[in-house]
Amino acid sequence: MTDAATNMRLKLPATCLILEIILMILFGTLVQYDHETDAKHWHEHLHNRSSDIENDFYYRYPSFQDVHVMIFIGFGFLMTFLQRYGFSSVGFNFLIAAFALQWATLMQGFFHGMHGGKIHIGVESMINADFCTGAVLISFGAVLGKTSPVQLLVMALFEVVLFAVNEFILLTLLGAKDAGGSMTIHTFGAYFGLIVTRVLYRPNLDKSKHKNCSVYHSDLFAMIGTLYLWMFWPSFNSAITAHGDDQHRTALNTYYSLAACTLSTYSLSALTAHDGKLDMVHIQNAALAGGVAAGTAGEMMLTPVGSMIVGFLAGIISVLGYKYLTPVLEQKLKIQDTCGVHNLHGMPGVLGAIVGAVTAAVATKEVYGEGMEDVFPKIQSGAFTASAQGVRQAISLIVTLGMALFGGLIVGFILKIPIFGAPSDAICYEDNIYWEVPGEEPHHDNQLTAVRTEEVEKLNE
Amino acid sequence: MTDAATNMRLKLPATCLILEIILMILFGTLVQYDHETDAKHWHEHLHNRSSDIENDFYYRYPSFQDVHVMIFIGFGFLMTFLQRYGFSSVGFNFLIAAFALQWATLMQGFFHGMHGGKIHIGVESMINADFCTGAVLISFGAVLGKTSPVQLLVMALFEVVLFAVNEFILLTLLGAKDAGGSMTIHTFGAYFGLIVTRVLYRPNLDKSKHKNCSVYHSDLFAMIGTLYLWMFWPSFNSAITAHGDDQHRTALNTYYSLAACTLSTYSLSALTAHDGKLDMVHIQNAALAGGVAAGTAGEMMLTPVGSMIVGFLAGIISVLGYKYLTPVLEQKLKIQDTCGVHNLHGMPGVLGAIVGAVTAAVATKEVYGEGMEDVFPKIQSGAFTASAQGVRQAISLIVTLGMALFGGLIVGFILKIPIFGAPSDAICYEDNIYWEVPGEEPHHDNQLTAVRTEEVEKLNE
Amino acid sequence: MTDAATNMRLKLPATCLILEIILMILFGTLVQYDHETDAKHWHEHLHNRSSDIENDFYYRYPSFQDVHVMIFIGFGFLMTFLQRYGFSSVGFNFLIAAFALQWATLMQGFFHGMHGGKIHIGVESMINADFCTGAVLISFGAVLGKTSPVQLLVMALFEVVLFAVNEFILLTLLGAKDAGGSMTIHTFGAYFGLIVTRVLYRPNLDKSKHKNCSVYHSDLFAMIGTLYLWMFWPSFNSAITAHGDDQHRTALNTYYSLAACTLSTYSLSALTAHDGKLDMVHIQNAALAGGVAAGTAGEMMLTPVGSMIVGFLAGIISVLGYKYLTPVLEQKLKIQDTCGVHNLHGMPGVLGAIVGAVTAAVATKEVYGEGMEDVFPKIQSGAFTASAQGVRQAISLIVTLGMALFGGLIVGFILKIPIFGAPSDAICYEDNIYWEVPGEEPHHDNQLTAVRTEEVEKLNE
Repeated sequence: MTDAATNMRLKLPATCLILEIILMILFGTLVQYDHETDAKHWHEHLHNRSSDIENDFYYRYPSFQDVHVMIFIGFGFLMTFLQRYGFSSVGFNFLIAAFALQWATLMQGFFHGMHGGKIHIGVESMINADFCTGAVLISFGAVLGKTSPVQLLVMALFEVVLFAVNEFILLTLLGAKDAGGSMTIHTFGAYFGLIVTRVLYRPNLDKSKHKNCSVYHSDLFAMIGTLYLWMFWPSFNSAITAHGDDQHRTALNTYYSLAACTLSTYSLSALTAHDGKLDMVHIQNAALAGGVAAGTAGEMMLTPVGSMIVGFLAGIISVLGYKYLTPVLEQKLKIQDTCGVHNLHGMPGVLGAIVGAVTAAVATKEVYGEGMEDVFPKIQSGAFTASAQGVRQAISLIVTLGMALFGGLIVGFILKIPIFGAPSDAICYEDNIYWEVPGEEPHHDNQLTAVRTEEVEKLNE
Repeated sequence: MTDAATNMRLKLPATCLILEIILMILFGTLVQYDHETDAKHWHEHLHNRSSDIENDFYYRYPSFQDVHVMIFIGFGFLMTFLQRYGFSSVGFNFLIAAFALQWATLMQGFFHGMHGGKIHIGVESMINADFCTGAVLISFGAVLGKTSPVQLLVMALFEVVLFAVNEFILLTLLGAKDAGGSMTIHTFGAYFGLIVTRVLYRPNLDKSKHKNCSVYHSDLFAMIGTLYLWMFWPSFNSAITAHGDDQHRTALNTYYSLAACTLSTYSLSALTAHDGKLDMVHIQNAALAGGVAAGTAGEMMLTPVGSMIVGFLAGIISVLGYKYLTPVLEQKLKIQDTCGVHNLHGMPGVLGAIVGAVTAAVATKEVYGEGMEDVFPKIQSGAFTASAQGVRQAISLIVTLGMALFGGLIVGFILKIPIFGAPSDAICYEDNIYWEVPGEEPHHDNQLTAVRTEEVEKLNE
Repeated sequence: MTDAATNMRLKLPATCLILEIILMILFGTLVQYDHETDAKHWHEHLHNRSSDIENDFYYRYPSFQDVHVMIFIGFGFLMTFLQRYGFSSVGFNFLIAAFALQWATLMQGFFHGMHGGKIHIGVESMINADFCTGAVLISFGAVLGKTSPVQLLVMALFEVVLFAVNEFILLTLLGAKDAGGSMTIHTFGAYFGLIVTRVLYRPNLDKSKHKNCSVYHSDLFAMIGTLYLWMFWPSFNSAITAHGDDQHRTALNTYYSLAACTLSTYSLSALTAHDGKLDMVHIQNAALAGGVAAGTAGEMMLTPVGSMIVGFLAGIISVLGYKYLTPVLEQKLKIQDTCGVHNLHGMPGVLGAIVGAVTAAVATKEVYGEGMEDVFPKIQSGAFTASAQGVRQAISLIVTLGMALFGGLIVGFILKIPIFGAPSDAICYEDNIYWEVPGEEPHHDNQLTAVRTEEVEKLNE
């Protein structure tokens, strides 16, 4: 199952090596340790501090590691549900994430980490780089099974730039808040990926249809991804909020949002099945929508019950999306969304953005006290009123959708150029094209083998 | 394989939605951020503190996340050893844990978190909610494969209440110490579940016997659960102890207890097999008994060697239980304990309670110094003598056993009401009843199958 | 598949029980809580400290847990790639790690943790014990599939002693720096294991050749191990460096080293395959070489781009090793290196040692400022010049290689004594010898399906 078009012998090494060499040149020219990572600067700084424990490392590194697990295990294994695409799901996820986090360090640093002509890096920039990578992996979910690794690297190359521009507009120019990335990560990544997959529409994809489904153990592997995403989402949303009550509250809000979302997901999954049986697709995906939807308002004084309501609604929307909207998107709009990122990241991301805008608009000094400074510095300083903050949050959503749709369109057409080794319609969702794949099953004793031989012969008849 | 009795189309959604709506109403009425999670209160508080790093979040959140992994991945995957019950093991674990942690927040808050008529929540209450959930999941282990998700939710509903009452009696009324929950979590969860499964006794369960065993890869999935429980148990036992030396010492004690337990488990597993072959059931379960048994005394000055002795004994007891006691319980007492929770949580929990009572009884000011305040505040304040503390620990074990047996009896009879969709004896241990289940193996091309047939034939020659 | 030679009924229990009892006696005699773990001492200490948050637990415990996951899940699952050796890979990894960490506590404590005749332990010694265990598990990778559990315990017994001696020579006598263990852990573990497997050379190992390969799902299980090692390597390298900027910088350097390594690994894997297909062996292993190679210099002011160059080279060396060197080692030097530890730990470890020597030699007060004290205390104090530090780093590499080769030779011959139950050549790479192994697949044959159909029909009536 090798042919010239999809042969990666030269394309993939060339792409990876050129990208990595460019990265190294740019890092060598532009990137420096920040003042908490640099031996000299931190020790100068220490004189004015009480202790090493005030280094940002101790505030953020445990959260960083949780986010890191979400990126590599969470996203990677979530996509292993396909029966013959596990190597690619985990392996391409690994490759494009390793590339994207380096590239994101530069792009995000360029837009908001420059100090005297140099990009300063430390644990917070590492978390931000992983966040940006998350958006790329969401888009990967939309095109899963239908793209070559070179296409994915090219997509990541452009998407990271657009992500950084969008993030800069939202957080710096508009003064919006989006610590857990309902807008910057989820809405952006999902709609970007959806447009890319629309542009790459394959009318004859049903030739590979029999491979676009799971087997028993592939669904269990996917549950590893699901659960790590679910468990660590409180760390994701709180990873870069202000220290103290902010990180604490964000983690707590996300925890309850996810718990409520899980119950509505199970409810709706059984309710919408004709025989009341739960559908693994819903459990693996929709139960996570509560984390997405708490991405903007999680750091605000959303209240525990507010978080639960948000999660509860997110789960409902997400299951209904999988059940009723995905088939429509595919048939009417020609959007072939392999993982249903519209249901997990798209709609819940938009919901999260709206919840964030409303929560911001009703913020009062009464409720936030001195903590207003950390959550809404512009309101505290008098630059905005609370309702102006709300309006800017809403504008941010519109900007994000615009950037994602426009960016996805352009990048989709770039990826259509037939030099990147995309698989033909008949060999989608198949590891064999890009990977050395071993047999399915171990060598067993003769006895068992005999039984199986009969089965195999029967199948061959 | 659908029939009216087990059809979840309406029962499951109705149960989940009603429960979640009640939870949201109660949260809306009763629950508030605590002073470390609330923007206003924390910032008022900050004036008297040195720094944000003193927020309890930084003391406890990494431990919380480890506990969270134990609850969702640890318990969930530990139970995937059954060949055709992986979806239910992981999936029902997920569902009932997501429900129980919300419900536990209310019940535990009601008994010991009320401030001015409101329940205050933060990272410590999140850990406690996960702990209570742990007890429910232990009971789930006893009835695994024989209950519908609605039954499990009903069980969780009652068990959480009883857990909170028992915990209140032990920690508040009796002044006992049980940071890692040898009594409150393990002994309670195990004996509660054992009585429930006794009441739900199925005389014709051997109709499903061929499914009550593992396959090669299901045992590997279960090892993921085992190892996460094993690795993070030091975090479990130390998650809510006092700050400083207490958390440090508890983690260390548990680490050595588990290491010693692993060696005695492997010894006994090989020794009790007629051909010296290791049994995965023992490795997956008994190697964890050292964590259970260090649950009460782990925070005390148990000494490293004391911890090792406790773990060593726990491993021996647990393997012997699997080998010799479980069959007796099933045949004589009609207790069908699917996961052998009596061996992993029951007996080691009782051992842990006894070790805790003895260690408390011999506590001296000589050994604890000023640290007595954190470990045994009642001894420090002069309210109890050390031996009185020991006696109260022992009484706590008896109360726990009583509550578990009595509670399990009542809840067992409630679960017998034939409206919850329990499976019939012939279709236990089977995902198919409650889940859409895909095929076992990938679709291969005929070509590949043909090749394989040749290989197989060659092997048979 | 049971025979007297490999029967573990008495050998394994006897070995485990004797070792554990000796450990308990030594712990009882020699080991004490350190001043941060002991109730009395920490509280005395607290008077001079600002707060409990300064307890080393909060600086190191999250890193410890990440290291712990690498040891038990990372190493354990990385080795599950073999189709019929998953139980042994995870299970023996578990057993020897649980033993080695206890034994390492004593050996390392004896060489550099004695205070008034007692070994003081706490979170730092727990990390060091896990590190030493890591070296043993690397050696296990070289002999994987060809050794009995008793042989492995005996190997661990001796290797831990030699590890502690070598570590003492390097860190204490020579004053070398090696926080992430490029030399002490990776170089030592790899070359020790390679010599052991050389001494245990099996000329007729091709009898088991058909089992020395992966199947589809075993490769996915192995990716769990790979990714946890990859994600947590920043924690590994930074776990015992000095507080503050040192831990922060080491984590950051390792993060970028690994990312660059991943891109060079994918490049070289596709480039060296005749059909451009990626090889799972490379992805699972070589992508980790960047962590190994940053083990010595990671804590130094290596710069981000310096880290990327190191990782980039490590990935290239490692893939080329798997592709071209491993077959030569096997055919010419008779080194049967099951996991290719020479490519993942051996060569990248040597590279890391050289990078560390060079980076140390160019250290200046200009760059390190007051931070010199933490990274190179001997340079700061004027005991060494920077170049002398570099020379001592280089000598350390040579000492390590010497200790590993000499130690491996002796231990190899000890393991050849035919009383430890090693498998014969025809039954290597096979769980069946030491484990009760269930069937491969669930019951669902035609026969069962027929039964099921009946059941379903019955239910539907």
